[in-house]
Amino acid sequence: MKLTCTQENLNKALNIVGKVVNKNTTLPILNNILLKTEKKGLKLSSTNLELGVSHWIGGKVEEEGEITIPTKLFANFISNLPSGNVEIRLREDMLSVKCNGYKTNIKGMSAKEYPLMPKIDAEPIFKIASLEFKNALGQVLPAVSSSESRMELTGVLMDISEIKKGKIVLVATDSYRLAERTIILDKKDVSDDALKTLGDVGSVIIPKNTIQELARDLDDEEEVLEVMISEKQILFNFGRSSMISRLIEGKYPDYKQVIPETYLVKTEVNTKELLNAIRVASLFANTSSNSIELKISTTADNVEVSAETSEVGSNTTRIASEINFNPSREGKEKRAEQDKVQGGDNFSVVYNYRYLLDGLNSINGEKADLKINGESAPTVLSSPGKESFIYVIMPIRS
Amino acid sequence: MKLTCTQENLNKALNIVGKVVNKNTTLPILNNILLKTEKKGLKLSSTNLELGVSHWIGGKVEEEGEITIPTKLFANFISNLPSGNVEIRLREDMLSVKCNGYKTNIKGMSAKEYPLMPKIDAEPIFKIASLEFKNALGQVLPAVSSSESRMELTGVLMDISEIKKGKIVLVATDSYRLAERTIILDKKDVSDDALKTLGDVGSVIIPKNTIQELARDLDDEEEVLEVMISEKQILFNFGRSSMISRLIEGKYPDYKQVIPETYLVKTEVNTKELLNAIRVASLFANTSSNSIELKISTTADNVEVSAETSEVGSNTTRIASEINFNPSREGKEKRAEQDKVQGGDNFSVVYNYRYLLDGLNSINGEKADLKINGESAPTVLSSPGKESFIYVIMPIRS
Repeated sequence: MKLTCTQENLNKALNIVGKVVNKNTTLPILNNILLKTEKKGLKLSSTNLELGVSHWIGGKVEEEGEITIPTKLFANFISNLPSGNVEIRLREDMLSVKCNGYKTNIKGMSAKEYPLMPKIDAEPIFKIASLEFKNALGQVLPAVSSSESRMELTGVLMDISEIKKGKIVLVATDSYRLAERTIILDKKDVSDDALKTLGDVGSVIIPKNTIQELARDLDDEEEVLEVMISEKQILFNFGRSSMISRLIEGKYPDYKQVIPETYLVKTEVNTKELLNAIRVASLFANTSSNSIELKISTTADNVEVSAETSEVGSNTTRIASEINFNPSREGKEKRAEQDKVQGGDNFSVVYNYRYLLDGLNSINGEKADLKINGESAPTVLSSPGKESFIYVIMPIRS
Repeated sequence: MKLTCTQENLNKALNIVGKVVNKNTTLPILNNILLKTEKKGLKLSSTNLELGVSHWIGGKVEEEGEITIPTKLFANFISNLPSGNVEIRLREDMLSVKCNGYKTNIKGMSAKEYPLMPKIDAEPIFKIASLEFKNALGQVLPAVSSSESRMELTGVLMDISEIKKGKIVLVATDSYRLAERTIILDKKDVSDDALKTLGDVGSVIIPKNTIQELARDLDDEEEVLEVMISEKQILFNFGRSSMISRLIEGKYPDYKQVIPETYLVKTEVNTKELLNAIRVASLFANTSSNSIELKISTTADNVEVSAETSEVGSNTTRIASEINFNPSREGKEKRAEQDKVQGGDNFSVVYNYRYLLDGLNSINGEKADLKINGESAPTVLSSPGKESFIYVIMPIRS
């Protein structure tokens, strides 16, 4: 191996490829990064056996070759070099790096020992603007379960059953709250051929870690993301990077049944004002249940956020907001029920404040709609007039 | 207690007073902050028995009073409130706080239980621009010892033996390296009366934690710092804040004898270039000794920074820099000695890279002077032409 490339490109590549966290301590070579000359440039790859990331950079190749190098050392080293050209040369297992007064030799390990990355030789199922996909991932990520007791909930569901109509749906839930993001694709960006090859895969579950890495690496600038799917893997191509991940096996629960079709009352609030009130109340919440109360007053048209712990103190914040009963038949039925339980016009719902904060942060707009179904049925958060993102949260039964 | 003040002022006060870390877990009230109406405003104070900090804010006081409140809770709470007026009222041990829709009750503990802060009823010994003092503290701080085996080295020495000439000296050392910062005061800012009252205290040792807090709290804006000293305490007044700290007892070593009076060779280097070369070399340094080598070539006029570990690899960076032998008689004697040891014109000195990085970072200028005394005598770092800050570092004997 003998080539010249720039410090800037190398550094960018290492920022992407060098972040794959190795959880497998029995295979030390996974702490290394694979360097390989390819297509008149250098390909850097890294894997933890679940997720593989690679990035290609251009350069002047004089001799082909491949080697693996300790990731952390190499990334730290390159990031400290001055910008400009870097000369890389491999002699046996020693990688020599020269640039602008710096002479360095780094001991590597043979590339033959490095695990092969799986490949998907298929056409992209769909293409999408990377920024749009990045934002959608960010909205559902907080709701992914971190408990491994139900593996299928530790990933994001990508439902492609209606992709022919140009619709895909991202879903995450930990069974206390659920986030659903619908994406509408341009039909020319969906490949019928690829779908035929794939067969009847209606949805896939992508591991949380893969989603996090992907959301981090997708550039904010305009770029196109291509998504390829096989039975057990998913591949993302974007810019000069590609990321391949195993899929989570198992059956995702029928999440649609969790989303209420109707509501009792609806209120539109200032997102920032509600977020702040919840943050303040959280300081007074019981530290094991994290419970705070929302008191809905339809007569006074306000929402009161409050929490109390006898040892600490109490807090109440009043937020003015128009509150409307659902005028539909289902709404009227709900109201009749509610009248019996807490007595009609003013009632309280108790939530885990963390779940409320996550939901409101994901809504990410000036206003938020809360569709409330009483103290023991799910509440739905969304942006007013938009149904592309909804966040369902189960109250705490007090 | 009944008063009105602004959220901005309260928040600023809590940023200063709320950061005093309580190490004493047997006295839970030290986790609280003392609020007391004073001089038509509110004084907030906190202490960990070693260090006490207070800050006064203006307000409209309707009823005097005092209480202690959990620091962390109160600071988090106030920081989340919207800006504007805050109404504070004490009823028994419950502090009620109202502002703009927020109503809060926080349970406090009686102010009578709170430890009394020591006082110094003396005139300031000297005054200084707070930014100048802040910068000087920042330069010596990294050299303070963190080992408690020699308590006197865990603080910064403030030598005031020549204060009548307008000179004070700040010193820190952990016996591997030493930082000395000389400050020249305007004579009108030194009080002869206060010095007479103080008697023959030639120097004091200020705990590291106090120096860190002080450096953090001194505003970057133009403000005057007043320093008062008693036998066992030191008091700093600045803006609306004051900080009182115990002094470290014990005798500081005679640090002057560590500072070499002459040198073998002197070289002026680009600080950033040398810092970068050391950072890169550090990746290849032995992780227990942290040793890197500086090879001084007087014939080629360059300094080579290098490190090597057989398992990791090696790095060498060459930095062009004029190197001059000391033309004085002492310099010539040193050169004759050096000739015998490593053979004259080109020789190596081994350092702990962390100490070099600290020193170069403290120099804080485009260029740095290195006065080198061979491989077993101290090297002195300073800014070219300036002697107000010097940093002495002992090589590792290889």
